[in-house]
This record gives sequence, structure tokens and C-alpha cells, in this order.
Amino acid sequence: MKVGEIVAERIGFIGLGIMGRPMARHLVKAGYELVAHSRSRQHVDALCAESTTVIGADSPRAVAEQAATVITMLPDSPDVQDVVFGENGLAATMQSGGLLVDMSTISPEVAIEVNTTLAAKGVASLDAPVSGGEQGAINAALSIMVGGEAADVERAMPLFQAMGSTIVHVGAAGAGQTVKACNQIMVALHYAAASEALVLGAKAGVDPQKLIQVLSGGLATSRVLEMKGQKMVDRQFAPGFRVDLHRKDLAIALASGKAQGVPLPATALVDQLFQALATAGRGDLDHSALITIYEDLANFQLGRVN
Amino acid sequence: MKVGEIVAERIGFIGLGIMGRPMARHLVKAGYELVAHSRSRQHVDALCAESTTVIGADSPRAVAEQAATVITMLPDSPDVQDVVFGENGLAATMQSGGLLVDMSTISPEVAIEVNTTLAAKGVASLDAPVSGGEQGAINAALSIMVGGEAADVERAMPLFQAMGSTIVHVGAAGAGQTVKACNQIMVALHYAAASEALVLGAKAGVDPQKLIQVLSGGLATSRVLEMKGQKMVDRQFAPGFRVDLHRKDLAIALASGKAQGVPLPATALVDQLFQALATAGRGDLDHSALITIYEDLANFQLGRVN
Repeated sequence: MKVGEIVAERIGFIGLGIMGRPMARHLVKAGYELVAHSRSRQHVDALCAESTTVIGADSPRAVAEQAATVITMLPDSPDVQDVVFGENGLAATMQSGGLLVDMSTISPEVAIEVNTTLAAKGVASLDAPVSGGEQGAINAALSIMVGGEAADVERAMPLFQAMGSTIVHVGAAGAGQTVKACNQIMVALHYAAASEALVLGAKAGVDPQKLIQVLSGGLATSRVLEMKGQKMVDRQFAPGFRVDLHRKDLAIALASGKAQGVPLPATALVDQLFQALATAGRGDLDHSALITIYEDLANFQLGRVN
Repeated sequence: MKVGEIVAERIGFIGLGIMGRPMARHLVKAGYELVAHSRSRQHVDALCAESTTVIGADSPRAVAEQAATVITMLPDSPDVQDVVFGENGLAATMQSGGLLVDMSTISPEVAIEVNTTLAAKGVASLDAPVSGGEQGAINAALSIMVGGEAADVERAMPLFQAMGSTIVHVGAAGAGQTVKACNQIMVALHYAAASEALVLGAKAGVDPQKLIQVLSGGLATSRVLEMKGQKMVDRQFAPGFRVDLHRKDLAIALASGKAQGVPLPATALVDQLFQALATAGRGDLDHSALITIYEDLANFQLGRVN
């Protein structure tokens, strides 16, 4: 800590991946002192090297011992379960009055389990998954869907405002994850819709540009078609949002559907097509590459059209 | 004919259904003399009673004998095949130099068959299906997707402009029907996407209003969600566009997929759910009622939320 530097509060931050790093940097910029932990020690060291207001920590316990408010940004439900419920995890080490803000995308049911367990120890928690991807994180323009108690959302609001541009309190614990799952269902199905329309239309001889132009103008349009349709035609599949991450999110949605007793037949079908993408070795492409599976099925490629 | 009334041209019009009637009226208003035929004689008589510039005709032959340009607005492919290829049909009775403008929604393959057969007799033809529904027809605000030769599109343009607000020449013969099929695929799949998201989210405890608000703001949004999401929550299923008509259009899309060698797995699945709607006796509701099948599957109703 430099003398005289403004430090509003000390915040724990666990998970310095592609999303976590830029999010943590925005907190540092906003004047927070960070206690940072990540599975990859080099990401912790790199962040510490960037700023004198970042302290490295070796474990979730070490974070909990130095910060009352902890943010987690982890890949999947088991990672959050490990950090919260594992030996020396946050459930065992955070102190009463603390606040856990889990910004990972995980299953709503695990989010509720985390909330209930921590609440029994006097620790508040929010599920606050984001959308907007790496660019949204870099630009502090994430959309944040928050589930939990209103008073806790209020408490975390300055943190959210440092990282995101749209922050919506969508309901009780788990609601943030539920809305995120619904979001990912819709995006995946909209890719399937655009893919079936573009491949059928193009193989039947219609210029894909005309298809996009006409379909964008009416009830058939989607943000996916408007933002990604041309890229799908031009085969620009650099991520963006990776197929493997969307597969993870569809698995969460389907598990939540099972837990809630809500059959999701179209999501289940499109999940299988995303599985085909991964099997074909395209798990690292942007999720808009779903169209390539349809091209394979139709033995036809849209190609680059000018 | 009243003496002194402006009559630009005489146009044949076959098919005075829910869509055809308002479309024909706009042509009359634009100054065209109509030779009108419909399976239901009372619709012909009613239109004749409205205007002195409408002449009733008993058959497609009677239309073809009195008008060089003929518009058809019929329910389905077999109806068009009957009017064109049937005994005394247009293929046998229209004269060289004539123009058939088929504005029905039928299969692209039948549209091409019509075009090829008529072309051999020196009769030009366009496939020009519309979107915008009954309201679009009443307001002369239809979107018209036109397949055929540019010169023929030019010839029909004043007619299109009397009935529609967006007219796009999308390609060669059949292309209009192909684009319409693609349009109906996307709308159907977007209803499935919104239904799975809304039912999962609501049964998991999230206020559907919040869901619509958040999902509308990002990559997950669709015109269907924005225009119909609240009505789906409020159970306002008065058509609009009827389930049975969308089923017909999905059958066309699937048949075209087969003809073109393009597998359409998600369309096939959603077609089955539309079949379930019809089986449940809801074929006359608006297509947004697809969500009720998901409610049945989940044994849960969104109900009216305020």
C-alpha cells in the first residue's frame, strides 16, 4: 500500500481467468484494495505486479481472513462448490457479517445451496452472473443479473458499478443464475433458428445477404441474426464466446430444467448439436459456428458471398 | 363500370379469404378493375356489391378469359396446383404474354413447377408470398417477398405497392417462397426459445416481467420476445396468426428441406410441438400459444402476473 493512496475497502477476489482479470482490474481502478487468489499462481503474481493495492493470497481461506467481502469468478458449479464447501473453503472461513458475491455462471440450484449454507453462518451472498463476454469485462460494460436480498444487492452495488453497465436485481437467491440460464437457452436456440434458415435458404439458391436483409426486417428477426448473421455467412468464427462455454451453460440449463421439472426439448436438441461441434473439434470457435454443423448435415457450405 | 371512373388496368384475383379480401379491396381503391373468383361465391358477391369496378367470375378460366394479369391468394400448395394445373386451370387458359402473381404461401418446389409450366406457354409468373398477417393486409402494410424475373417484378410493382409497404425481389422463381419458409422457421423456433426460457424461469421463481425485461436487453432478444412475450405471460392468445396456418407453413419448410437435402432437426421438433397444440384443440389460437404446450409439459402455468 502506498501512503496516501485512496482505498475505499478491501475486497477478496477469487478466479483470475479471462473474465476475472479485467473485472479485478476495474475494481483496482475504482480504488479498492484487492486480496486476490487464483488456481494459476502466475495470474495472481501478474496482477500484484500491476498494482501496489493488490495482495496475493494462496487459498480461499487466506482471502477470507483478509477481506469481509469476497467476489468469485470461476468456470463452473464444481469450482464454486470446491471454493465454498471444500476444506478451508469460504463456508468454513468467512466471518459472520461477510458478503460473498459469486459472479460465476453456475447452476441456480448450487447458487441456492451456497446461499442457504452461508446464511446459516451469518454470511450473506448474491448470485450475480454476467453477460457481455470478455469485451464487456474489459470495457466495464457487463450486464449483471443479481439474485439475493435487496439489502445485499445495495451493499454490492458500488462493486457492480465498477464492472458493469446494466445491473438488474432479478429476484431471490438463485434468480440471477436462472435468468442467465434462460438467456443462454434463447441465444443457443436463436443460433439454431438462424442456421436452419440460412442453410435451407442458401442451398435452395437464395443469396444469404438477401435472406439476412429480409428476415431482419420482420417478426423473424433476432439480435443473433442481426449481429452474427453476416459473420456466419462470412465464416468469421473467432470467439467471441466459445462453443465449449456455451455447452457448459446449456448443461446448467438442462440440469436446472430437470431440478425444476421443466422439460426443455428444443434446448436438449440444440445441446446435442453443440456436442457435435465439440466432437468435430470446433469447441474453441465462437458459438455462431453452430451453423457449420448444419452445413455438414446438408453437405453444403454457404461460403463467402459478395 | 361507371362512366368516367378511372380504371388503370383489369386484374384477375382468385382467392377472397381473410387475406385476399382486404388485398383485393386495396387494388380496387388504387383504381384497378377486378375480375374476382373465390371458392365461396358469397365473398365474390360481397366484393361486387362493394364496388362497381369488380366483376364476379365463376372459375379460373373465366378469370383468365377477362384479365391478362392474375393474382392468386390461396391457402396451400394443393389449392394453387388445382387452380393452375386443374381442368380449366390457369395453365390451360391464360394467354401468352400474361402474368400470374401467386401471393399464396406454398412450397418453393411447387412455385418453381408453376413458373416452368407457364413459361413454356409464354406466361410469366412470380411467387410473391407475404408476411404481416390480416392486419398487414388491411393496412396495405404487407411485406412481400418476390421470386422471379426482374422485368416481371417491375411489371407487378404497382400492384404490390397497392397492397404492401416492403417489397423485396429476393431471387429467381421459388426464392420468394424459400424466404417465406425461412421466415416461418425462425418465428416458430423463436417462440420455442421464448417458451422454454419463460417457463423454466417462472417455474424456478423468477417474475416473468423481470425475465422479459432482462432478456430483451441483450444478445438473447428476438422480435417475438419483444412483441409477444408479455402477451404470452398474460395469456392473450387471440390471433394474430393462427397455429394451424403456422403448422401448414412448417410442413412447407420441412418438405422444402427434404427436397433440398437440408436436415432441419429443430424445425422438425417444433413442428411436433405445434402438432401437440392442434391435438390439444388449440389450432385456432395465435401461434404464441406454443407456450401452453410447454406449460402442460411442466405442469405449471405462468398465469397473469402484475
